[in-house]
Amino acid sequence: MQFAGSHILSVQQFERGDVERIFSVADRMAPYAHRRRITKVLDGAILGSMFFEPSTRTRVSFGSAFNLLGGEVRETTGFENSAIAKGESLYDTARVLSGYSDVIVMRHPAEGSVREFAAASRVPVMNGGDGSNEHPSQALLDLYTIQSEMAASGRSIDQLRIAMVGDLRYGRTVHSLCKLLCLFSGVQVVLVSPRELRMPAEIVEALCNTGHQVLESDALEESIAHVDIVYSTRIQEERFSSQEEADLYRGRFRLNQSIYTHNCEPNTVIMHPLPRDSRDHARELDDDLNDNPNLAIFRQTDNGVLVRMALFALILDVVKQVDAHARDVNWYTAGRF
Amino acid sequence: MQFAGSHILSVQQFERGDVERIFSVADRMAPYAHRRRITKVLDGAILGSMFFEPSTRTRVSFGSAFNLLGGEVRETTGFENSAIAKGESLYDTARVLSGYSDVIVMRHPAEGSVREFAAASRVPVMNGGDGSNEHPSQALLDLYTIQSEMAASGRSIDQLRIAMVGDLRYGRTVHSLCKLLCLFSGVQVVLVSPRELRMPAEIVEALCNTGHQVLESDALEESIAHVDIVYSTRIQEERFSSQEEADLYRGRFRLNQSIYTHNCEPNTVIMHPLPRDSRDHARELDDDLNDNPNLAIFRQTDNGVLVRMALFALILDVVKQVDAHARDVNWYTAGRF
Amino acid sequence: MQFAGSHILSVQQFERGDVERIFSVADRMAPYAHRRRITKVLDGAILGSMFFEPSTRTRVSFGSAFNLLGGEVRETTGFENSAIAKGESLYDTARVLSGYSDVIVMRHPAEGSVREFAAASRVPVMNGGDGSNEHPSQALLDLYTIQSEMAASGRSIDQLRIAMVGDLRYGRTVHSLCKLLCLFSGVQVVLVSPRELRMPAEIVEALCNTGHQVLESDALEESIAHVDIVYSTRIQEERFSSQEEADLYRGRFRLNQSIYTHNCEPNTVIMHPLPRDSRDHARELDDDLNDNPNLAIFRQTDNGVLVRMALFALILDVVKQVDAHARDVNWYTAGRF
Repeated sequence: MQFAGSHILSVQQFERGDVERIFSVADRMAPYAHRRRITKVLDGAILGSMFFEPSTRTRVSFGSAFNLLGGEVRETTGFENSAIAKGESLYDTARVLSGYSDVIVMRHPAEGSVREFAAASRVPVMNGGDGSNEHPSQALLDLYTIQSEMAASGRSIDQLRIAMVGDLRYGRTVHSLCKLLCLFSGVQVVLVSPRELRMPAEIVEALCNTGHQVLESDALEESIAHVDIVYSTRIQEERFSSQEEADLYRGRFRLNQSIYTHNCEPNTVIMHPLPRDSRDHARELDDDLNDNPNLAIFRQTDNGVLVRMALFALILDVVKQVDAHARDVNWYTAGRF
Repeated sequence: MQFAGSHILSVQQFERGDVERIFSVADRMAPYAHRRRITKVLDGAILGSMFFEPSTRTRVSFGSAFNLLGGEVRETTGFENSAIAKGESLYDTARVLSGYSDVIVMRHPAEGSVREFAAASRVPVMNGGDGSNEHPSQALLDLYTIQSEMAASGRSIDQLRIAMVGDLRYGRTVHSLCKLLCLFSGVQVVLVSPRELRMPAEIVEALCNTGHQVLESDALEESIAHVDIVYSTRIQEERFSSQEEADLYRGRFRLNQSIYTHNCEPNTVIMHPLPRDSRDHARELDDDLNDNPNLAIFRQTDNGVLVRMALFALILDVVKQVDAHARDVNWYTAGRF
Repeated sequence: MQFAGSHILSVQQFERGDVERIFSVADRMAPYAHRRRITKVLDGAILGSMFFEPSTRTRVSFGSAFNLLGGEVRETTGFENSAIAKGESLYDTARVLSGYSDVIVMRHPAEGSVREFAAASRVPVMNGGDGSNEHPSQALLDLYTIQSEMAASGRSIDQLRIAMVGDLRYGRTVHSLCKLLCLFSGVQVVLVSPRELRMPAEIVEALCNTGHQVLESDALEESIAHVDIVYSTRIQEERFSSQEEADLYRGRFRLNQSIYTHNCEPNTVIMHPLPRDSRDHARELDDDLNDNPNLAIFRQTDNGVLVRMALFALILDVVKQVDAHARDVNWYTAGRF
């Protein structure tokens, strides 16, 4: 795809080459995100951060990514904006807000809303999550993390063995990740969930049609024995009709250091889209894994900054200029990463 | 007036020459707002954006305008600040907050509050709307839009023919616009409203005293036949005692492409302070006007950025320095404006 | 202490030399805070401003201080972040958020929360207030104000005579200020409160153990007769079980210009942590003191910016570079301070 000026709305818009291009740019963002150098390549540019649904970490991650490229951020959170309450169409909102910035990241509770907004926007729009539909930068940061964790042992996404564990029915991130995995080859996917929370059939089908090997299971320990990645997820309690119903599933699949040691291959990487539920009745990833060097959950969120910087740099067409606007960091940064 | 260091509290503080000065500076802001050039003239300056009443677009418009001049923005929204709830006076609030920035834009639900705040502030204060009282930057952007739309056909604000339509009783913007029109000459104003929502008598009187010609009507089609501008407004439902009462008036005056074609002169410009109410029972400006090149409603909000940049530049006395701190934009901006 | 890379969590972590170091750096920040010069020493750095409990002025003061050093600010307010509501631990929150910025200021309603957060953070953390526990930058700005007010008459914090008045039981600021005073010598402290709202015994004991002279009283006028500073406080109504209970104490100790004139020595300085309660039934500091040049309450909040700038500069180890990244201000600033 042509990145300059494009909207980023869905993982479905990418071909393999596009993903590889994004990841290669993300690699080049590391010195800036890790505070060894700063760049001012987007000095003077404005990001409109329009979070019509709250999500602190996604919002701050996008905002920091834009700041790290030298740009400014103007934000809104919630529906405090009564314009929509006063009957304004998304078309009007988009026409107006797109006059205030150079690029927009938007999150909205309604499925499809970001695409509708983007159609009326005069500047590129990035989907920061539209209801249960899409959250493409999350899927990209997950896959980028998989690639970089695999690279540490000389491997790649092709021929990956991954177990996805937990609420595979409502977990938006695992759906999007599977779609991206369909761009690669020879992947083995073990889907571990309660029967009622299985991965939607059309996604399983897409994996199979790609030639990937898919296994479904409701037993954790045997399923994580021969994989490179365990991707654990939280029960999406807000999607159930009651807490009682969510409680039926919460805590069903718990990974802790002892289970890890007894079942996993050495160096099996543990991932999670976060937040992980650390309350006693849940604990899908136990705190005793915090010292396990293969726990990659915070490398995931760190990688989110790299991927979002890469998307901004590509959309605004400044990739080649990043290093020319750079200098060394002059403040205390020891022990950051 | 002397702009440097002044508060901007009311349209009443301007003489014709002041308005012309603001508009002439706004013209010079276009290359920056339209992303052909950036300027860092206010690099290091801080805007305190104090929105004690939410208004996303006014807030973001002011913030972006300040960013476009190179400055930073510190914001607050709502009364999350419990200081006022704890019995603090506006005097104290102003003394404290004015120590944190170089200029303040303030919105507040109480009439007169911004003026009281400004009296205690140590930095210039701009009124971003104080209840039903004043919203001077909105009135200025409306008039600036009228001037630039008229200029496209070689005309000016003098001798303008304008129809104002809808809720003329509670619509703050039409009141302020009329006050500004009193600075010009030979204007014909057609006021179209339900009888109960007529323009307040003192404003009609002010227009007449200036020598302007004023017609009042409750019939839309004949009233828009011989004007340069149709300025439509939303029913201010929040000002009525009930939705039922607001519903009596909502949808009374609807302009759509067919009515426009059959009644208006060619190139009659359509304006609206936004948000327009696009729900079925309202639709004061139909969506089928969206492709009409004379629909100026989004040029209005775009012009808001120019006018607010101009006000900041004048108040902080940097007009002559803007271009000296400028350079070309280095990122993707195709098809913006 | 070693400032570079340190957390600022409690006034208890400072020795006298540390406080003096902070104040000496704060002195050097005056030209920047008072807008005679700007510095870009932290150009490219990001402050994560995490206010899990609202506090507009503390948040804006920290943010402005960081902007004045040239850095950017990413913010969150409230618990809109549902991650904690979804069962996320503070450990996880800290690991994630500390990947988005170079330094964090955090406010949180739970005592000890900021310390727990800091233990997991990868970047320095400043405590912006954790419940009834600590608010170290407030205590520092109070003491810094005392020092600078005393310096105006050729005196210092040693041998200071101070009266603290009001709700000494629940007032977090007077507790912290007393702890800092224990680093100095020969201080006379008069504690004026209703019997039920006396200063906690352990703090009185700490003052006495230092060799300071402590007097407790419930009579205002005689207590303020021979002091250098009257530090008045608001009744912390939110800490009482009912408004009725708070009303028992509110308005008990009121200082106004007449009482000041009849009882105080010339040049006795009046301080207050703000907000002061200006409602009729409270008025611990009357509005008729506003023209008294010894009313230092707004110098306190102004000094807060200096002290916070100093803390940032020390923690990020850029004190020696500040002036090298500076230039004169080029916009209107007359009559600011």
